[in-house]
Amino acid sequence: MTHTVKEIGTALGMDVLGAVSLKVTGVAEPAVAKPEHLVIAMTPEFIADLPRGAARVAVLPQDTDWQDLGLEAAIIAPRPRYAMSGVTAMMDPGQGWANGIHPSAVIDESARIDAGVSIGPLSVIGPRAHIGGGTRIGPQCHVGADSVIGADSLLREGVRIGARATIGERLFAQPGAVVGGDGFSFVTPETSSVEQARRTLGDSGDTASQSWARIHSLGSVTIGDDVELGANCTIDSGTVRDTCIGPGTKIDNLVMIGHNVEVGRDCLLCGMVGIAGSTRIGNNVVLAGQTGVSDNIFIGDNVITGGGTIVLSNIPAGRVMLGYPAMKMDGHIDLYKRLRRLGRVFDDVAALKKAVFKSSQSE
Amino acid sequence: MTHTVKEIGTALGMDVLGAVSLKVTGVAEPAVAKPEHLVIAMTPEFIADLPRGAARVAVLPQDTDWQDLGLEAAIIAPRPRYAMSGVTAMMDPGQGWANGIHPSAVIDESARIDAGVSIGPLSVIGPRAHIGGGTRIGPQCHVGADSVIGADSLLREGVRIGARATIGERLFAQPGAVVGGDGFSFVTPETSSVEQARRTLGDSGDTASQSWARIHSLGSVTIGDDVELGANCTIDSGTVRDTCIGPGTKIDNLVMIGHNVEVGRDCLLCGMVGIAGSTRIGNNVVLAGQTGVSDNIFIGDNVITGGGTIVLSNIPAGRVMLGYPAMKMDGHIDLYKRLRRLGRVFDDVAALKKAVFKSSQSE
Amino acid sequence: MTHTVKEIGTALGMDVLGAVSLKVTGVAEPAVAKPEHLVIAMTPEFIADLPRGAARVAVLPQDTDWQDLGLEAAIIAPRPRYAMSGVTAMMDPGQGWANGIHPSAVIDESARIDAGVSIGPLSVIGPRAHIGGGTRIGPQCHVGADSVIGADSLLREGVRIGARATIGERLFAQPGAVVGGDGFSFVTPETSSVEQARRTLGDSGDTASQSWARIHSLGSVTIGDDVELGANCTIDSGTVRDTCIGPGTKIDNLVMIGHNVEVGRDCLLCGMVGIAGSTRIGNNVVLAGQTGVSDNIFIGDNVITGGGTIVLSNIPAGRVMLGYPAMKMDGHIDLYKRLRRLGRVFDDVAALKKAVFKSSQSE
Repeated sequence: MTHTVKEIGTALGMDVLGAVSLKVTGVAEPAVAKPEHLVIAMTPEFIADLPRGAARVAVLPQDTDWQDLGLEAAIIAPRPRYAMSGVTAMMDPGQGWANGIHPSAVIDESARIDAGVSIGPLSVIGPRAHIGGGTRIGPQCHVGADSVIGADSLLREGVRIGARATIGERLFAQPGAVVGGDGFSFVTPETSSVEQARRTLGDSGDTASQSWARIHSLGSVTIGDDVELGANCTIDSGTVRDTCIGPGTKIDNLVMIGHNVEVGRDCLLCGMVGIAGSTRIGNNVVLAGQTGVSDNIFIGDNVITGGGTIVLSNIPAGRVMLGYPAMKMDGHIDLYKRLRRLGRVFDDVAALKKAVFKSSQSE
Repeated sequence: MTHTVKEIGTALGMDVLGAVSLKVTGVAEPAVAKPEHLVIAMTPEFIADLPRGAARVAVLPQDTDWQDLGLEAAIIAPRPRYAMSGVTAMMDPGQGWANGIHPSAVIDESARIDAGVSIGPLSVIGPRAHIGGGTRIGPQCHVGADSVIGADSLLREGVRIGARATIGERLFAQPGAVVGGDGFSFVTPETSSVEQARRTLGDSGDTASQSWARIHSLGSVTIGDDVELGANCTIDSGTVRDTCIGPGTKIDNLVMIGHNVEVGRDCLLCGMVGIAGSTRIGNNVVLAGQTGVSDNIFIGDNVITGGGTIVLSNIPAGRVMLGYPAMKMDGHIDLYKRLRRLGRVFDDVAALKKAVFKSSQSE
Repeated sequence: MTHTVKEIGTALGMDVLGAVSLKVTGVAEPAVAKPEHLVIAMTPEFIADLPRGAARVAVLPQDTDWQDLGLEAAIIAPRPRYAMSGVTAMMDPGQGWANGIHPSAVIDESARIDAGVSIGPLSVIGPRAHIGGGTRIGPQCHVGADSVIGADSLLREGVRIGARATIGERLFAQPGAVVGGDGFSFVTPETSSVEQARRTLGDSGDTASQSWARIHSLGSVTIGDDVELGANCTIDSGTVRDTCIGPGTKIDNLVMIGHNVEVGRDCLLCGMVGIAGSTRIGNNVVLAGQTGVSDNIFIGDNVITGGGTIVLSNIPAGRVMLGYPAMKMDGHIDLYKRLRRLGRVFDDVAALKKAVFKSSQSE
């Protein structure tokens, strides 16, 4: 990952100052940087740490006096957090996998493998699967029958794609991600206690035993371009049509997307988010960690939830939500303040009762 | 998966009408169906969509005027949702795996493999394991030493079964499901801060450091017939006896069942449910997504929880629960309505104080 | 696992009484024990069950009249729960794996494998990885390039370690655990709606579409000695420096540790705990199941949370917390009691209003 300061500036469209032919071989935090390291110092804290390390070049916000910090060169980032994206992409050392197709991989002879594809040891590519050009498939992955993975994708170790999935370009799938497990869809011969409890909001009715018949998943999963799938996440197949994930959507570790769900474009679904079957999520939605969303509901464009939000009903576009059950974030904050004053109000009511009713009985 | 309309009706015990020798090769949603597709139109919305597609035959509720919809044949489903089970089972195209035992599978010579078993590429079957007749084991699975998997089961890619598990017939395990990880059970030489905090409900006592000694899991896991295990779920081994999952119970993706847990028969444990160690769950219990259940408690038969319910104490049979901590659903709904009126009541109390006590101090 | 009673007592430093040369071959619960089984009877209930089984020897609390229970020998445990650790470790039958390196494992020729290492079938060891002496790597595991795993570790089936991880001695990793997936870190060219909503506590501002640029993870993961990783848990790589897990910390199934997180020593992170990016957790912290912790905050030493606690802000050392959002456990219990009385207080306020204001309007 060796680059000169000038190469980095040119590639990322950022101004470079000083000894621009200096070479860097990696990235480190300011205080522990060695002379060969590039430092990304986006905050006053990181900038203050620079003299503690041995960095000679740093990515810095505009108007930073880099010479005063003892640096020999500087790369100037107008929006430092965004600069992290370009710099880390350039300096990523990767997983150290060999190129080419490992002889231990089990590839069906009917699979179509485009140019420049790497397939790691002990991976399995099923019948008629199609792997787009430049895609790197890591060790111990599985791509099922008739599935398509677009060009320039990266599948980390142990990713599992079932049959008939359609995935766009530049998929980035973390270890253990699962696409195309069967949906969790069961039905009883008679109206079930759950259907009954939903209708009555609480009465599960006659409680005789019931056994569950499986509804098979005949659909698969369709995923747009530029999607990320987190480690050990699971995206279930649809019942008749495909479960759909829109382009640009990023999905974190241990997220679950149920059958028939439709997620729009450019969403962020953070760690451990769960979306139950047949729910629709708009575009540009951000669900914080451990947010849960009920089945068969709708979340509008640009909705944001806070951590642990439990969404039991539709949310209109643009709302910022928090809590269990989800409410608007400002309302939740007001409620929480009131709850902290609840003891005092209870005391007030007791005093009022005593004054008004001359009641001496303890409440 | 080609079947005639008549074959489907006969197999599922449903009446067929019209051109019953028509053949269908797959299932599609009404609006996008091609002439070779069977459509399952269970709702007025789906029925209204029929003319937009090219379907010639549909599964319909009783008393639907199928000829008026332009269909050539109809299959009449008395309970349409239940019909989904039979129809999808018949039309399931499966994963496209080859039959037989793949040469790359690593099968211990002492394993017992019954007739009609398929084992996918790069799977591992341990010493003395027993795979029942007709069972299909997918790619990259693992079945540990001395484990038994009943007949006619299906293990999707990457399922991992540890040693000494006993699993009934017709197991359906989704990709990445783990059975028989060790229980999470640790103990300190002295009374731990957790034991102390539980006893006192909040005082963790002396906060000196403590290190954790591992209690090994000597038990394994016993699973009844007709159980489903979701993608990347985990079922831990018991400490001395086995963790037990009753027959007919369906477990969704990313569910965790702790050590020593006993789950009864015909339960539904939806996505991301967590059940901590040594808890007992009755029969026919339905826990909605992200429900969490504490260790060492009991949930009675036929209990239903709503999404995200956190269960910290026992629940008697038949209850429908919601919230954190769990309360009866109707009580939770009442409470939630009251919380929305809390601001008004605070105002009322302030006004009352002013009127009664002539108090002018701000509350 | 055959041992005499005397051998067990000597190894664990516990007193033995009676026929100390009796041999036991396994452990069972009292009521179902066979003559060759050792029984661990720590509670009055288990002790009462002893006569129902055929055990000849039991681990018992001090001052138990073992002869009266029909036993031929006894092992006396001063703290019975702690005795579970030593006894179960001695009697653990293990996974039944063969010793040595399986010929189907794919081991890079530059990897360094110390003495006494076992590597199971179909595992992959990457370039320059170093496996410490006595470590057992199960079937279908992956150890990435340049990663180090300390001596005497155990990796169950399908564990996945990415590149450049540094792991101490005696790691115990359950099936499907993932170390070193990339962090979930994305940035928009302009200020994002999430940054905006956080600043304003609820207003996501202009809702124009935005696409997410990936910040790559250049760091990896550092894990101390004596750490346990649960089944299908995920520990993400750091952005520049490593994500860190302190020595002695035990992590349960389906836990997620985000990028840059620092977890101290001797913590217990129970099932489904999620810790978002860049958060710091002190020493000796115990987070109960499904606890969620926001990004970029701090949890002090010795903190304990109850099940399902959602932590949205810093917690000082020593606190015991519960609820959503987290509050001190005793305050949460008080609040919950008040909420149950809320209906009565609402009635009181209505009655007061009627009495004071002569108001007849319904509230």
